[in-house]
Amino acid sequence: MKKLATFILAIICFQVYAQDKTLAERLGYSKSDRLLIIHADDLGMAHSENAATVAAIKNGVVNSTSIMMPCAWSTEAGEMVADMPDLDIGVHITLTNEWHTYKYAPIASKSEVPGLVGLDGFMYKDCASVAQNAIPEEVEKEMRAQIEAAIKIGIKPTHLDSHMGCVFYGRPEYVLSYLKLAEEYGIPAMMNKQIVDAVIKPNALLFKDIDVDNLILIDEVAIANPEAYDEMGMEAFYTDVLNSLNPGVTVLLNHIAYDDAEMRAITTRFTHWHAAWRQADFDFFTGQKVRDLLKNNDIKLITWKEIGKLTDKNLILSEN
Amino acid sequence: MKKLATFILAIICFQVYAQDKTLAERLGYSKSDRLLIIHADDLGMAHSENAATVAAIKNGVVNSTSIMMPCAWSTEAGEMVADMPDLDIGVHITLTNEWHTYKYAPIASKSEVPGLVGLDGFMYKDCASVAQNAIPEEVEKEMRAQIEAAIKIGIKPTHLDSHMGCVFYGRPEYVLSYLKLAEEYGIPAMMNKQIVDAVIKPNALLFKDIDVDNLILIDEVAIANPEAYDEMGMEAFYTDVLNSLNPGVTVLLNHIAYDDAEMRAITTRFTHWHAAWRQADFDFFTGQKVRDLLKNNDIKLITWKEIGKLTDKNLILSEN
Repeated sequence: MKKLATFILAIICFQVYAQDKTLAERLGYSKSDRLLIIHADDLGMAHSENAATVAAIKNGVVNSTSIMMPCAWSTEAGEMVADMPDLDIGVHITLTNEWHTYKYAPIASKSEVPGLVGLDGFMYKDCASVAQNAIPEEVEKEMRAQIEAAIKIGIKPTHLDSHMGCVFYGRPEYVLSYLKLAEEYGIPAMMNKQIVDAVIKPNALLFKDIDVDNLILIDEVAIANPEAYDEMGMEAFYTDVLNSLNPGVTVLLNHIAYDDAEMRAITTRFTHWHAAWRQADFDFFTGQKVRDLLKNNDIKLITWKEIGKLTDKNLILSEN
Repeated sequence: MKKLATFILAIICFQVYAQDKTLAERLGYSKSDRLLIIHADDLGMAHSENAATVAAIKNGVVNSTSIMMPCAWSTEAGEMVADMPDLDIGVHITLTNEWHTYKYAPIASKSEVPGLVGLDGFMYKDCASVAQNAIPEEVEKEMRAQIEAAIKIGIKPTHLDSHMGCVFYGRPEYVLSYLKLAEEYGIPAMMNKQIVDAVIKPNALLFKDIDVDNLILIDEVAIANPEAYDEMGMEAFYTDVLNSLNPGVTVLLNHIAYDDAEMRAITTRFTHWHAAWRQADFDFFTGQKVRDLLKNNDIKLITWKEIGKLTDKNLILSEN
């Protein structure tokens, strides 16, 4: 009975990790402000993605992006953003190569990360295969190689996030490496309460050096899914997101490219996340409607750079 | 004096390597026949290159190609030619990544071929840097990896050739590996008398196991160069080549892609070998004029597959 009581108490104590201030307040906003990062994933994946994403930043409302360093076009992305020093540009940690006919391999030497390399010599297509094959040391090595590669092409990464979420849906150790590397490079890593609940809390021992109380957690992550694309269409989906945005910090993820020959070939046999999907994202985030929605709903755009300033004062890792 | 006489005799003997029959005769043609392979390099380099090259094979007169395995689109090329089992498709041994913003790395693990990897983590831009940095063992390892990668995606390579000629313009040992691998895989490697004179003859000891007399040598290799592109234009250049073709076997190399957004981005800052150049190649080799020129000049198209049949009977390596 005493044991059970201790166990329940431990659970209760662990769950009481809520920070005194909301992230919005820590950033200098009020608790009721609706704060938004409009974030384009997959920069560097293709020329089409680069050209459209940069256009959506320059001429649209996209104000943050992150780069897939293992892809053939990451160098071009680096050149394209060289004259935009204020741009939010994170490292989109990439552990998978989901496309059927367009290929990329890890940045790290294949012999050093064999668990990230499929039989075809490229990355696996899905997170489950990564989780099954890649030991944590390999994933950490590849994450570091991707961050270093970004720095090498002139990027000063503003944050880390995870392509297809494979860091979160893999092994808990991947999340630990992700947080440790963010700490090491002094930048925030995209995290939310769901990941804390699903990965960190059930593995308390593994994360014993992580100061969970001070983790920067995004309040909400919004992203179109296949159902939204098929049933509502992108404009209706995003309109709904922006009209019903909760107070706090939301990251709205999108994937911006042109519906052109290159992107259609890359996404061949994909019925979602494909060229038309990415063109729809481009169209929405460069149009007038999104500007009206942001204004009418009094939504304030913020950046990972602003969030990054908190990392100086609030270390992700505890100091012991 | 005796030494000098011996030296001169050795040179004379070495130069007497002419084969009894011409390559045309060995292939069953007459000495006076004008035989031509119309060969598209750089398959696999880009989606644009794949789509245009396959179209120029299916609808034009291109009858041979070779694939750049380290590039992101080689897998797509493999899919595209899967229904063309009779197609000539060689491995275009690729040691350089000449483009400024479109990148690829060796197929072999970077740690095993460090001399093929530049500071940026990709292949060097030019043959001279390869020659300076890559030891012969690394180049042989990468060549083998590229051949194996081609086989892995379902290609049965019909021949070997060399992207930008870096195998020939590097170290003599590269040529030795190239010939040895061709022998090992039972396929011909593109060679001509100029390479024998420039690389093999001055390094007789290195090539002591090569049966130079029985090497398959292409009589002529024709390829547009920047001067031809600038001063004559592609149509005039190829017209001239086809109207003045000598008897024997000529390989006419071209580079076929569409002048589209992807290819313009890949070849950014290139004034030659660029998107417009490749579109001009596509236009010529899919037009009516080339058909008329082939017919009027009684030019017979042959393939590397035909030449490959000779390799069974005439081993490149001597049997000792």
